[in-house]
Amino acid sequence: MSTSFNPGKGEGQPVGVAVLGMGTVGTDVIRLMQENADAFEARIGGPLALKGVAVSDLDKPRPGVDPALLTDDAHALVERDDVDIVVEVIGGIDYPRELVLKALKAGKSVVTANKALVAAHADELAAAADEQNVDLYFEAAVAAAIPVVGMLRRSLAGDQINRIFGIVNGTTNFILDAMATTGASYEDALAEATRLGYAEADPTADVEGHDAASKAAILASLGFHSRVKFNDVHCEGITQISADDITAAAKAGYTIKLLAICERLTNEDGSEQVSARVHPTLIPSSHPLASVSKSFNAIYVDAEAAGSLMFYGNGAGGAPTASAVLGDLVGAARNKVHGGRAPGENTYANLPVADFGDVPTRYHIDMQVKDRVGVLADLATRFADAGISLRTVRQEEVERHEHARLILVTHQAPESALAGMVERLSELDDVQQVTSVIRLDG
Amino acid sequence: MSTSFNPGKGEGQPVGVAVLGMGTVGTDVIRLMQENADAFEARIGGPLALKGVAVSDLDKPRPGVDPALLTDDAHALVERDDVDIVVEVIGGIDYPRELVLKALKAGKSVVTANKALVAAHADELAAAADEQNVDLYFEAAVAAAIPVVGMLRRSLAGDQINRIFGIVNGTTNFILDAMATTGASYEDALAEATRLGYAEADPTADVEGHDAASKAAILASLGFHSRVKFNDVHCEGITQISADDITAAAKAGYTIKLLAICERLTNEDGSEQVSARVHPTLIPSSHPLASVSKSFNAIYVDAEAAGSLMFYGNGAGGAPTASAVLGDLVGAARNKVHGGRAPGENTYANLPVADFGDVPTRYHIDMQVKDRVGVLADLATRFADAGISLRTVRQEEVERHEHARLILVTHQAPESALAGMVERLSELDDVQQVTSVIRLDG
Repeated sequence: MSTSFNPGKGEGQPVGVAVLGMGTVGTDVIRLMQENADAFEARIGGPLALKGVAVSDLDKPRPGVDPALLTDDAHALVERDDVDIVVEVIGGIDYPRELVLKALKAGKSVVTANKALVAAHADELAAAADEQNVDLYFEAAVAAAIPVVGMLRRSLAGDQINRIFGIVNGTTNFILDAMATTGASYEDALAEATRLGYAEADPTADVEGHDAASKAAILASLGFHSRVKFNDVHCEGITQISADDITAAAKAGYTIKLLAICERLTNEDGSEQVSARVHPTLIPSSHPLASVSKSFNAIYVDAEAAGSLMFYGNGAGGAPTASAVLGDLVGAARNKVHGGRAPGENTYANLPVADFGDVPTRYHIDMQVKDRVGVLADLATRFADAGISLRTVRQEEVERHEHARLILVTHQAPESALAGMVERLSELDDVQQVTSVIRLDG
Repeated sequence: MSTSFNPGKGEGQPVGVAVLGMGTVGTDVIRLMQENADAFEARIGGPLALKGVAVSDLDKPRPGVDPALLTDDAHALVERDDVDIVVEVIGGIDYPRELVLKALKAGKSVVTANKALVAAHADELAAAADEQNVDLYFEAAVAAAIPVVGMLRRSLAGDQINRIFGIVNGTTNFILDAMATTGASYEDALAEATRLGYAEADPTADVEGHDAASKAAILASLGFHSRVKFNDVHCEGITQISADDITAAAKAGYTIKLLAICERLTNEDGSEQVSARVHPTLIPSSHPLASVSKSFNAIYVDAEAAGSLMFYGNGAGGAPTASAVLGDLVGAARNKVHGGRAPGENTYANLPVADFGDVPTRYHIDMQVKDRVGVLADLATRFADAGISLRTVRQEEVERHEHARLILVTHQAPESALAGMVERLSELDDVQQVTSVIRLDG
């Protein structure tokens, strides 16, 4: 970080704001900026002045915005002299990356809600912000108004974070919750989520876990003071989860949630690695995360001194996301008026990202096996030989007695050992079908 | 706020720290400062240098601290040239007030965990900090490492907060939880809390609600950008709660918790007031706050755009409190190195504190009445005449039929109307005893 600093424009000076994008979030940001103008001026020490709004379609009606402020030349807008802060709520990666870099290099502070951009290019963006001594804020990129970014960046700056895990995608939680509550299939629950506006027309980014993976990358980077990018996150979505999986889980006292799990791992030699992953996870139905319903988000942070902290709220939607953007905007504007700068990205610990195969996980394996004497003993021996200990074994009667149902829950073992074991199991004559394999946590 | 600013000492420069007080929290702060020295230096941009520790008894052994650093002259320590930041973890009000004011006036930033001091004298302290352009941090004053102060001050700076409520005192929650779980009396549960270290030798500040009231004052001040002091908070403790109250509540589907409730109230003419209160409160047992067990804290914040947010964690204890102090210390030190200043107190909205009598509340009234025809109709008429509507009425058989038990739950009405009604009830011939009156929320 440079040691020169921004002395500030001085008390009472207006702070020029450019907004890029006028979708749901952008519209709410502009509306709330206008509605709360007096309060924001008092909190900042000077008024926010909206200088321009970049949109792709100039002909679309934009109620509540002076048409003179609209422009389709975002590149020119972000470099304008009267703009101090650029708010990026476009979405996508390449186009906003160009604009945000250009803004930072022109000495503008940037507030973005764009998790994909931050998870892919934080290095480059942080370097540009450092270079110019400007702010780069992105609270809205993770769990909307739940202030987990600020908490990791500042409140827990005096602690060591060991684990961050939770529900960070509202769409998939809505779908899994609907499946659990109504018994609906994945397809029907997704259709309902789309109808109600919880899922986008193309739900890929949500249901395949990509959105959650971007958030996991951001949380792991901040929490472990290291660089974890989107591509470093092991990611599995919920498209393979069936109504049967959910019913079977409930019967066994579990709930299936799509969790983001970020961990600090200690190697045998005492060195450390980090890991970030997103996958459907069985958690005990008594765990607080199991009761997180609809599109809500909840995030646990385990820290050395603070212990376990939990944050819960509405993790998506125009207004909650706008709340996070505006909190960042007030912060960035305060610095433009009074001088100084918020703590930037700091990846000093520079911990390597562990191979997913080395990460300790636990499996819940549901399978059909031949109903012959000695099957269980034989399988148990195979697990023991692979160094995997079993936590619970349940054998269930099956109606026509042609086979038995076996449900195994393992203790922690390296992911690769567990995955290899499942592969070998499915090749055994005694094993008729591995019905489902879901990781377990909590 | 002054428009001059602190330009910072520059990257790599050491930041001198004085710690006042070496009780549980002070000891953990010093230990963790030493254990995490490298991490903190990387996060701050310069090393923290412990310059002195003020203690009242120089002869007491202080393992882990260089004896040369100990002093019993706190007044001299806070003004020393090599001290940049003063950490106050003494407790009490008058003595730490003198020291903190002296430190601020000498240009030192201050980090305090002292809720009583902040709730009583925030005005004066904030003015001194503004005057010198230094930081005054107090995250640890409310709910230890649960970062609710930072969240109100920064993350939600772009939103309007309407209500803050929750469990902010671990000792009383431990006692109420023990009473509910084991059926213990208040006295026995208090004794157990003392034995286990959850209650202090003199538990007055906790069980009378004073500690929670200080926290409510701080939360209301930050949340509503107004000045709410300890004396503005209506405060009732838990000493009158009996095992019977708790059993009766459980039977009716309620749990009794000591809640701090801070509200923005809108008058009929559209003007606004604020209110902060602490009292035993019945909440539905299905409400997440009802499951907050042992000494844990949980705080809900309802904001206009963000919706309802919840924060949960360990709200007391040496290490969690030290985590909050150290987070503040890293923040204050970063500003000493890089320049600038955290957002100070800002009470621009300056909303008046409502008379407690005008605050809308709801009552749960448990009473014994004569078992005669028409009693219920007569009482219901009296409530209606007072403008109080009843939400539920339950009449229960009593064993020997000499009287009936009547349990009334009201809708919201001004506190003074409800309190007046209860007073009049207890004077009626038909009412043999008003067994308990507890407010209801959630």
